[in-house]
Amino acid sequence: MAITAALRPISTVVYSANRLTPSISSIHKPKTLLCSASLSNLVGSEAGVCLSVGTHLIPHPDKVEKGGEDAFFVSNHRGGVIAVADGVSGWAEKDVNPALFSRELMAHASSLVEDEEVNYEPRSLIRKAHAATTSIGSATTVVAMLERNGILKMANVGDCGVRIIRRGQIVFSTSPQEHYFDCPYQLSSEAVGQTFLDATVMTVELMEEDTVVMGSDGLFDNVYDTEILAVVDSCDSVADAAKALANLAHSHSKDSSFDSPYSQEARARGFDVPWWKKIMGMKLTGGKLDDITVIIGQVESSLSS
Amino acid sequence: MAITAALRPISTVVYSANRLTPSISSIHKPKTLLCSASLSNLVGSEAGVCLSVGTHLIPHPDKVEKGGEDAFFVSNHRGGVIAVADGVSGWAEKDVNPALFSRELMAHASSLVEDEEVNYEPRSLIRKAHAATTSIGSATTVVAMLERNGILKMANVGDCGVRIIRRGQIVFSTSPQEHYFDCPYQLSSEAVGQTFLDATVMTVELMEEDTVVMGSDGLFDNVYDTEILAVVDSCDSVADAAKALANLAHSHSKDSSFDSPYSQEARARGFDVPWWKKIMGMKLTGGKLDDITVIIGQVESSLSS
Repeated sequence: MAITAALRPISTVVYSANRLTPSISSIHKPKTLLCSASLSNLVGSEAGVCLSVGTHLIPHPDKVEKGGEDAFFVSNHRGGVIAVADGVSGWAEKDVNPALFSRELMAHASSLVEDEEVNYEPRSLIRKAHAATTSIGSATTVVAMLERNGILKMANVGDCGVRIIRRGQIVFSTSPQEHYFDCPYQLSSEAVGQTFLDATVMTVELMEEDTVVMGSDGLFDNVYDTEILAVVDSCDSVADAAKALANLAHSHSKDSSFDSPYSQEARARGFDVPWWKKIMGMKLTGGKLDDITVIIGQVESSLSS
Repeated sequence: MAITAALRPISTVVYSANRLTPSISSIHKPKTLLCSASLSNLVGSEAGVCLSVGTHLIPHPDKVEKGGEDAFFVSNHRGGVIAVADGVSGWAEKDVNPALFSRELMAHASSLVEDEEVNYEPRSLIRKAHAATTSIGSATTVVAMLERNGILKMANVGDCGVRIIRRGQIVFSTSPQEHYFDCPYQLSSEAVGQTFLDATVMTVELMEEDTVVMGSDGLFDNVYDTEILAVVDSCDSVADAAKALANLAHSHSKDSSFDSPYSQEARARGFDVPWWKKIMGMKLTGGKLDDITVIIGQVESSLSS
């Protein structure tokens, strides 16, 4: 099951793959035009920018019935909030559903977006959402909050990621945090896990028409940045772009001959096929089967709500 | 000629390869200890962090006598300011010394660090320094300014770069901006060039013991991120790390068999050896001869000046 979802100009909505929403639209409809090159030249105190958002989630092929273990939310607060959490699958070995933690984390985060103590800071949102989560499990997460003046504030724990595209090139990428290969930093129900203090906290000044691509590692392990650029460039809407990127990641993830970013990284870390296959000219290839979440946000002008 | 330089706790100094400074020390000596995980818990209003800086510049082998075309500066203002400019070499074909623009740009930037209108904003520093530069030519540049609260503010035009290392891994990287392969965005004396409005503007919240690695493309075209991590980890001081990284980049740049980041990128863009070499199993390899500038900044605690 795959879902495509984006926001009507209403309140926060949390998604996982077993919920469906029917339509795509901007978080705020554009009403004023800004000079994209100079965000400080706002047209009065009410003007600003916001995100037009499209999303798509494709669960791991073996986890379709339960909807997979990714969760995300989109909110229209201020310039827009987008976030992804990826439940760590290892919990299934302990008879814990790995989806519970990521879904509860996103549910709390979505309900806390306007919280005074959160103060519209992504790290604070992670802190309070994590503290409120009672499920057993762990998850990677990335949160991005857009201010009306174009400042995108981000906090990242683990290997979800963000790319920012401006005029056809990637001008910003997050870097994954990990303990070792395939073991990312993660918020956890256990004391051994990471916390908001381990988040990488960053801002980028966005311009109108910038595109924000957020995803779980299921996207970035299976799709190269050059492919992300090409797909986004070829799509007419954020919804189409999210769907096309998720589908490309899904297709690559099932292709055992595709030399994916994941298999390249694995080889760089010393993982490979056995020696007798190597001397036959073979190497470790293939995509990585995983839940795949893609959120695309395009920066548009808007009036302040 | 190679130079190793860092700051005494004095005012701003501009370097290019034909100036030498004799000693290495912190911009500010550490005096108080902060909790590295919680930069908001400052010990009173005076406490904060600053950069301990080491630098090293190795000119292109053919440009040693003139000192190459890179320039940089380091300032002890607030938490510390570091910046690199890389003169675009194509100007030599027009009988213009490509070093003049980059050196003048950095000289103006260093003198404007405390300027009120600059307001300690890297993009504003680029704007005013560019406006003040009268030399013919063009340059890529990156500027990073550390606030005492740990916020590193950056503006980047072109393919100089920054990496931030935390607990042995890269948690932040800049992305180069370019028109096409080997033609980066550049501040220019000509109207066709880029301006401060084209800068990618970012912040990252630093923690004590984070390491900031800034360099011209001569570093990042010749040295992989994994090598940067290994070298920084193996060095006892920021000065040693800057020198070791510049030497590694220089060594790779002269090695025609080294499969450098530059040659990998070239192949990915479709550049390669002729077909008759390909069928002999050969491929485009080699480092990229270039000026190499490395600035290493380590985050330390300090008292406010």
